[in-house]
Amino acid sequence: MCRFLAYSGEPVFLTDLVCAPTHSLVHQSLHAAEAKTETNGDGFGIGWYGERPDPGLYRDVSPAWSDENLVNLCQQVRARAFFAHVRASTGTATTRANCHPFAHGRHLFMHNGQIGGYHRIKRRLEALIPDALYDHRRGATDSEAIFLLALANGLAEDPIGAMAQTLATVRDLMLAAGITEALRFTAVVTNGIELTAFRWACDGRPPSLYYRQTESGLIVVSEPIDGSREGWTIVPKGGTLQATRGANVVVKGPEVAAKKARIAA
Amino acid sequence: MCRFLAYSGEPVFLTDLVCAPTHSLVHQSLHAAEAKTETNGDGFGIGWYGERPDPGLYRDVSPAWSDENLVNLCQQVRARAFFAHVRASTGTATTRANCHPFAHGRHLFMHNGQIGGYHRIKRRLEALIPDALYDHRRGATDSEAIFLLALANGLAEDPIGAMAQTLATVRDLMLAAGITEALRFTAVVTNGIELTAFRWACDGRPPSLYYRQTESGLIVVSEPIDGSREGWTIVPKGGTLQATRGANVVVKGPEVAAKKARIAA
Amino acid sequence: MCRFLAYSGEPVFLTDLVCAPTHSLVHQSLHAAEAKTETNGDGFGIGWYGERPDPGLYRDVSPAWSDENLVNLCQQVRARAFFAHVRASTGTATTRANCHPFAHGRHLFMHNGQIGGYHRIKRRLEALIPDALYDHRRGATDSEAIFLLALANGLAEDPIGAMAQTLATVRDLMLAAGITEALRFTAVVTNGIELTAFRWACDGRPPSLYYRQTESGLIVVSEPIDGSREGWTIVPKGGTLQATRGANVVVKGPEVAAKKARIAA
Amino acid sequence: MCRFLAYSGEPVFLTDLVCAPTHSLVHQSLHAAEAKTETNGDGFGIGWYGERPDPGLYRDVSPAWSDENLVNLCQQVRARAFFAHVRASTGTATTRANCHPFAHGRHLFMHNGQIGGYHRIKRRLEALIPDALYDHRRGATDSEAIFLLALANGLAEDPIGAMAQTLATVRDLMLAAGITEALRFTAVVTNGIELTAFRWACDGRPPSLYYRQTESGLIVVSEPIDGSREGWTIVPKGGTLQATRGANVVVKGPEVAAKKARIAA
Repeated sequence: MCRFLAYSGEPVFLTDLVCAPTHSLVHQSLHAAEAKTETNGDGFGIGWYGERPDPGLYRDVSPAWSDENLVNLCQQVRARAFFAHVRASTGTATTRANCHPFAHGRHLFMHNGQIGGYHRIKRRLEALIPDALYDHRRGATDSEAIFLLALANGLAEDPIGAMAQTLATVRDLMLAAGITEALRFTAVVTNGIELTAFRWACDGRPPSLYYRQTESGLIVVSEPIDGSREGWTIVPKGGTLQATRGANVVVKGPEVAAKKARIAA
Repeated sequence: MCRFLAYSGEPVFLTDLVCAPTHSLVHQSLHAAEAKTETNGDGFGIGWYGERPDPGLYRDVSPAWSDENLVNLCQQVRARAFFAHVRASTGTATTRANCHPFAHGRHLFMHNGQIGGYHRIKRRLEALIPDALYDHRRGATDSEAIFLLALANGLAEDPIGAMAQTLATVRDLMLAAGITEALRFTAVVTNGIELTAFRWACDGRPPSLYYRQTESGLIVVSEPIDGSREGWTIVPKGGTLQATRGANVVVKGPEVAAKKARIAA
Repeated sequence: MCRFLAYSGEPVFLTDLVCAPTHSLVHQSLHAAEAKTETNGDGFGIGWYGERPDPGLYRDVSPAWSDENLVNLCQQVRARAFFAHVRASTGTATTRANCHPFAHGRHLFMHNGQIGGYHRIKRRLEALIPDALYDHRRGATDSEAIFLLALANGLAEDPIGAMAQTLATVRDLMLAAGITEALRFTAVVTNGIELTAFRWACDGRPPSLYYRQTESGLIVVSEPIDGSREGWTIVPKGGTLQATRGANVVVKGPEVAAKKARIAA
Repeated sequence: MCRFLAYSGEPVFLTDLVCAPTHSLVHQSLHAAEAKTETNGDGFGIGWYGERPDPGLYRDVSPAWSDENLVNLCQQVRARAFFAHVRASTGTATTRANCHPFAHGRHLFMHNGQIGGYHRIKRRLEALIPDALYDHRRGATDSEAIFLLALANGLAEDPIGAMAQTLATVRDLMLAAGITEALRFTAVVTNGIELTAFRWACDGRPPSLYYRQTESGLIVVSEPIDGSREGWTIVPKGGTLQATRGANVVVKGPEVAAKKARIAA
């Protein structure tokens, strides 16, 4: 399990959301409240959109709660959009390349959940990734594999459609391999301007997801960073959320896309 | 807070105690049951007596639960005496030099607890360490400082007396600085043959400590590694335990030594 | 480029060969004399045969010259056979899984050299590794891929034949991809008892390789660890060396096997 | 030995100076041309002034040449003033706290050189640092000790005077301890606006130092980052350089200050 946070809107310092709040993401790395694992100490990562079109990326294997570089960076970096993630491994090694978020061109992606029995379909899934994208694979996670396959399936143009198609493929492989464990997919992707969040699972138990619109923009989180449900809206199971520059938020419940992915709530 | 394990007796593979049991020390790094902190992910260390008179030492900053090198080493290394420790920092940075156990010549030392308000007496305490021993200081912990001062006070010849004297000095500094937080000292020291364990605190709340004599030797732990109290004897609060080659175990309750240290239970 | 050392024979402390000599492997990590790169600071690794049939493995990403754990371990560990390697990356990331030696069951393998243009045949090469062995792939190096493929090709029964077949396959892929850069393969493999070393390259320029028989056993090195050529015998270009328990050393010049691999000197 | 780079002036991306040039600082971490050591792989650090008055700081123990986070950060971060440093240890451990630059409040400081025989005066030197500043000591280097002592001596108001006084003190301790090795001090300090560079040594052999004024500001380097002496001016031995916002550059030769420090060229 993992915990994450995404932001989009007026530029803010990362620390205001990632480090400073009572139940910040850094706090959640040691004391998550709504996760399968209370401790998420298998690395962390931040990705942010500053002056460049492509995002910056900083990932490391230390627990977020004890990394002075992370705290310092968040203090200094202001961004119009950013992702932050603290990891609890579901099997793969603790290396920088296995930490989220993953970056490709303009996109950032992070994931909370897992492909059940991934180990048994890993090779077949990776084989579906086109050469040019496979070249960018740096780690061994199911999350990174999903991301690359989704990019091949048109993630840049149609995030929801591309992800639905990708996860349908994953479901097919899982069923063919006789895997009974679940596919759980609470995730966020962005190109720095458009942001899409997913809360899908094939067993009706996707990891938690909330959002909140503030004066400056949109915050999407695994669990509320101020330790209170008030002011936070749950993204419905099987649903998606989309926003542009942190505004024009559109939330959809379980629908065609999720069903297409065969992981409707 | 931290968790630790010490062994002395017939040579055994470290893994048999450190990794393999149900509630092994590695398991405790993520799910400690009797510690202030459930997670002890601020580094770990092992020290062991093999063929050399001086112990080997392997310490690293990663959480014990995700370190493949630790698992591999414990699988391979057999020793007649060893210490293993997983750390939850009480303030100082997560660096190798701040991980336990600490080694000096033939001795290994590890500590669970803290000098309350250490920050305020740190400099004065360090100033009491003689040059030759201060030269060996590599980190910034209160634990390492206590160890070096105890060595200066004759730890090699009289562990209990030397430690009592050292902690009395610490108490004096704390009182002079008006510190109200407690001094808690559950610790073990060994030269590979004699082992001394302490369970002292000035407020009657020293961290937990158990021991068990098996066919091969003596195990001393923060909490039982088989997840059950049965077969484990509690070291009394304010008490000490001494053994030679894992045998001739002598346990004393609160006594002159602890009182001398002014940290009787 | 990299530098390495292998030993087989009477048990000796690793430090006697890895750390202590004038031009030890640790010294070579900073000042290699016969390598393409003087600095080999992209990680290191040791593998050794102790009491268990399967070898122990300790690899880390820090430069060998500054790692206190490596020095300490080598001081403590005595083994009848061991490999030590310091890495200079030829492209892949500096992670533990990309450090040599690689271990599988009873085998250890390490490599100095590279598959020219590996990037362009990586995927096709990996696809040839059978599922069961591919499952053990932890990194992204050409070296690890060669090892796993060689295991599939019968490395356990016929190291020279299996490696020749493997490298022939690699050459075919390289030629099909129009790669002009060389395949260079100076490497050692062992199961703890039998040791086979290779010094092959398709352009007549394989990295250096020497050996020496001492009172206690056999040492095979990239460059002499006492800083002098005297007492060291060069393994001929295109040749192989085989030994059992560090004795019965058989050295062959360029021959059928190397030609089969299409990388004769 | 180490290599470093300082910049002050119009905001520029760190990568333009730290990573991109032919003989960038990252290149120098592996192939320094004018340093005692060609390899400077014992950690690195960057400090920069962005939107906050206090600088950001990112330091790590990996060699600069293989750290993807460093490259990524330099790509993203633009600053009006920054320091970058690659380290070759002169004895102390490779830890983040021993990497340069050092930060305190508004100041950044980095050093190339050493206090000869530092080990023998370390304790006495540290004892001179006032409590409030000693509290900020995180590592064990001579460089950090000099910085803290200089702060106590008024570095904020009079950098040259304060440093002269500090180094005079160091010289006294060295002479009293009978140390014959040299004190070499090529260093830079800044508060984000004023920058002062020093090129002092007591034996006339201070490490190299150059500067160059460009359209956007002032660059101060250990060795020219474009691999050519042209366009770079040598800071004279025993001299200092001062600038405000990268302009109004004043360079002085050996003078009263250096002599006061008793380390005139």
